[in-house]
Formats: sequence, structure tokens, C-alpha cells
Amino acid sequence: MAVYTEVTDDALTIFLEDFDIGSVVAFRGIAEGVENSNYSLRTTTGDFILTLYEKRVDPAELPWFIGLMEHLAHHGLACPTPVRGRDGEALRTLCGRHAAITTFLPGVWPRRVRVAHCGPVGAALAALHRAGADYAPTRVNALGPHGWMPLLDRARARADEVQVGLASDLDQILRDILAAWPTDLPRGHIHADLFPDNVFFLEDKLSGLIDFYFAATDLLAYDVAVCLNAWCFEPDFSFNVTKSRALLAGYRTVRPLSEPEIAALPVLCQGAAIRFLLTRLFDWLNTPDGAMVTRKDPLEYWRRLRFHLTAKNAGAYGI
Amino acid sequence: MAVYTEVTDDALTIFLEDFDIGSVVAFRGIAEGVENSNYSLRTTTGDFILTLYEKRVDPAELPWFIGLMEHLAHHGLACPTPVRGRDGEALRTLCGRHAAITTFLPGVWPRRVRVAHCGPVGAALAALHRAGADYAPTRVNALGPHGWMPLLDRARARADEVQVGLASDLDQILRDILAAWPTDLPRGHIHADLFPDNVFFLEDKLSGLIDFYFAATDLLAYDVAVCLNAWCFEPDFSFNVTKSRALLAGYRTVRPLSEPEIAALPVLCQGAAIRFLLTRLFDWLNTPDGAMVTRKDPLEYWRRLRFHLTAKNAGAYGI
Repeated sequence: MAVYTEVTDDALTIFLEDFDIGSVVAFRGIAEGVENSNYSLRTTTGDFILTLYEKRVDPAELPWFIGLMEHLAHHGLACPTPVRGRDGEALRTLCGRHAAITTFLPGVWPRRVRVAHCGPVGAALAALHRAGADYAPTRVNALGPHGWMPLLDRARARADEVQVGLASDLDQILRDILAAWPTDLPRGHIHADLFPDNVFFLEDKLSGLIDFYFAATDLLAYDVAVCLNAWCFEPDFSFNVTKSRALLAGYRTVRPLSEPEIAALPVLCQGAAIRFLLTRLFDWLNTPDGAMVTRKDPLEYWRRLRFHLTAKNAGAYGI
Repeated sequence: MAVYTEVTDDALTIFLEDFDIGSVVAFRGIAEGVENSNYSLRTTTGDFILTLYEKRVDPAELPWFIGLMEHLAHHGLACPTPVRGRDGEALRTLCGRHAAITTFLPGVWPRRVRVAHCGPVGAALAALHRAGADYAPTRVNALGPHGWMPLLDRARARADEVQVGLASDLDQILRDILAAWPTDLPRGHIHADLFPDNVFFLEDKLSGLIDFYFAATDLLAYDVAVCLNAWCFEPDFSFNVTKSRALLAGYRTVRPLSEPEIAALPVLCQGAAIRFLLTRLFDWLNTPDGAMVTRKDPLEYWRRLRFHLTAKNAGAYGI
């Protein structure tokens, strides 16, 4: 549930005077996303999204995100394009928050993933990796492998409230993952959070990708592993290899996966599973009862992780 | 915060096949309203609002609300118009909920009320009262004067948690209000909840009224009293008589107020204030801590009520 910051109509009118996109016609908060406040904004010239950045985003990193979206859009990726004000700046302030306007992307995110979605998602992820190749600035992935043990340390004392033995199980598994973690695979800018609610479709055709605020510079194949976790498990947490085969095939039509990347898929998938398990675990243990967000069950990723631990090689994913 | 029911893309596609409004282009939950789930829906033919009715609305009353909106729209009021399916029915089911699609109304609701808003609001309220005049079905106002003592009874035991002495104070004040309540004023269909977030403006011109799910058949001047409470107090709860004068003048340009209606304004305003005080009090005492709604402070209406108790006659409202 989003919209943490209420924007007054007066403040919005003044804010829009710094842009060349007309005056407001409609303005409504969007009930999606948990990081920022998002508004659907229609002006006399078109449709836009207004985002106010809330506390979880580091203001110092906003120019990198804005620059990445601009770069990707200019290189043909269907994603929100930041709209610059009359002074050339896209990143501005509104109601005491950093704020930006981006273009509106048509489409609906798939609430129930079908095999037909997975090929286009793989292809779009590879297109993102290619389009980002010559965006020079980099961003350390704070939620990458170096961040996982510190995350576990912060949750360790209370992890067993969620499942008996979870802290020591995760400790051993994480050590094994980090010891096996590949270091010499191709790197680039990754989305790092390409879940179904960040991918829009229009009549079964992928229409765009949104929400780049976890993007970072990391192993490209790790981004594939995130998608295998996000798109290829059924609601009962069984792994659907037909979906993963489609996702990987879609990816490879746009960007080939090297043999080392393919060989690393099991440990990359384990890493992706433990990354979401750890952030969910932290949120689970630290979200106040009255908070206006839905806590997501960390054990959903325990179940995914256990599948990936059984994967002897990339054959488990349909390659 | 709204959106209690998640609509899958598959269910939406099938739902739209029963309409003649094209296929989905964009679909996003709206983070406003507390009674129902509302989605902004764009199709290949235009923009709409999809509403799923949640538990607080009695399904048996939905045809009355839908019929009222159709009637008002056909009589020239700018309000959402229910869209009928191919079978002629506007009221349908989706994801286990009663659901309806209405037209999209452009505009932005005023977060900060200015005097310039108040005349148009009064005029629009009077236009609603006139447009509704020949809508034959009636609806008892469950939150009208007959409902107030039962509401107080349900909050009585714990009312003093909010303010010491509140239960006995309200008991005496409510008895006085009910004893003085007028019964022979003109009746008709009232909006009963015409707060700023239910009134849209486009560049200072009123563009429409929304959210008719508290509408009922009751004293027309009581609806004026609700608006005086909703639009004419400043954030520090001081009463702005310039705003009330503008609101009442706007109303009277479209529908005259009779002498008895004018004379009754103080007690009608007291009643309107105690009505919102009582529902807020009930919600305050009965909302679980983890609920995803913002509890509104009932004492904001205690302060409004105290102003109205000092009003000797309609002169207090600028007449």
C-alpha cells in the first residue's frame, strides 16, 4: 500500500508550473508499491506517474536511478521515462520529498503467471541488460551477496520466532552459498526485483517494465536467477520447469548465456532466494503491528531455497 | 486506503467481455476511499472506475445507489455514470464481490479548501437536490437522527477513553438535538457525505461529485449542514463564516432555502457534527491496531459541535 505523502492540489499546481506538460486534469494515489508514494497524474497533454521518494530510498542515489531509466528508455526499453522540468532537471522536490514525474506505461501486471508470460519476461530482462551496457555510472548492490550476512546478523537473535532452527540453518546455507559464489561472470546493470507486479502486459504482449529502485550493478545472471524465483514457482511452491525453460529461452534469444553463467544458475538461484528470505525476515521481525503495509511471509523463500539446494546443475531449470 | 479485493487480470478480462467498452489498457488500484475497492481502469475506448463493494455496503441497497447515480447523471449532474453490460445490467459480480463500472470523472479534490471552492460546492449540492427530485425509490438514512442514539449506546461504555465525561456530555447534547429536530422541512435525496475528497475541481471550476454510497432520503437542509461542517472549518477548527456565506449563497442560486430551513440551520449543523463524531468514535474504539485504515480523530467533531452549540440562529452562518 503506497501513498505516504499527501500532495495538496495547490502544491501540485505550482510544481507543474516548472514543467512543460500542461495543467492537471486528474490526480489519484496508486495503491501499489511499498517504497514510495505514487500518483497517477493526467494533464492536458497526457498521462504520467508522479513519484515521491520516501525514506527507504537514499536521496544521494536518486540521480543514478533517474539516469538509468532515461538511458534504458532512450535505448529502446519500454520503461518509465523521467520527464525533465523547464530547467532540464528531472529530480525535484515536492511537499518536502524528492520527487519525479515519469511517463505513464500502459498495461496490467499478471496476477496469475502463465507459461506464456515467461518467455517475454526473459527477453525483456535480456533487453534491459543489453540496453544498460553503456550506462557508465555504477551502483553497488547493497542487497547483493556482501549484504546477506549482515542482514542475517540483524535477524539472527529472533529468527527462530519464525521457524525453530532457522538462524543456524540459514547460517550454514549462506556460508556455503557465499563460498561457491561466482565472481568472474559478466557484470552490468540489473533490475534486481523483476517480480510480476513490475512487468506490464497488454493482451499477452509485454508492454513494459517498472520500478527500478532496487537496480544496481552486479552479475547479469543473478538477475536471471531472481526472475526464476519470481516467475517459476506455483502457488504451492512447486517449481514449474516449463516456465523456467520458457524464461531462459526467451532470455537467450536476446542475450546468450555463457557456459559459466549456465553452470552457476543453481547457486545464483540459492542466493536470490536467500536474499528475499532475509529481507522479508528482517521486515517480518521489525514491522510494527499498526504499520500500513502487508508483511510477506519469509518462509515462502525458505521453500524456494530448499528447491534450489536440490538442483545439481542447470538441468533443474530446463537447460 | 482502499483496495481490499485483488482482481486478477484473467478475471478482469472475462468481466469486460460482458461489456461493450473494449479491452483493458491499464488497471491500477486507487489509494483513496475506505468503504470499497476502487480501480482506475483504462480500456481501448476510454477511462472508467471499477468498484468492488466491500462488506460495509448492504448488497440489497446497491440497486438504489446505482439507480440514483444514473438518474442524477441523466438529469445533468456531473457524477459517475454506471456503465451497463451487454445484458443491460450495471450491477454485476467479480472476484466474489458485487461490482460496477462507472465513467471516469476528471478533476482533483481540493486538499486545502479556499473560499472560492465553497460557492460552487453549494450550487452543486442544490443541483443534486433538484436533479434527484423525481427519483422515486427512497432509502432510509441509517446514519440519520434515528441512528444516533443507538450509535452512542454502542460507544457509551468506552467513550470516556477518548475524553473524560464524553459519554454523559454527548448523551445530554444528543437528547437536546433530537428534541429540537425539525420534521416538516423539505425532504429528498441527499448526498450525506459531501466532503472535499468527494468533490472534484478543474482549474477552480467544479467538475463533479463522487461517492454516493452514503446517499439517502432525508431533509435537504441537513445535507447543507453536513457541507457547512465539511467545508467551513479551518484546520484549527475555527469557523470561517466567509466560507459558509459563500456556500449558502451558492446553494440559494440554484435552490431557495425556506425560512424554516434557514431557522433550523443551527440544530441541523449540531446534528451533522454529532453524526460524524459518533461514527468516528465508534470506528476509533473498534478499529484493530493492525487494520490498514487511518483512524480519524472523533474529537475534531467535538470541536465543531461546540461551535454549533453557540450558534443562536442562522446569522452565525452568515445569513
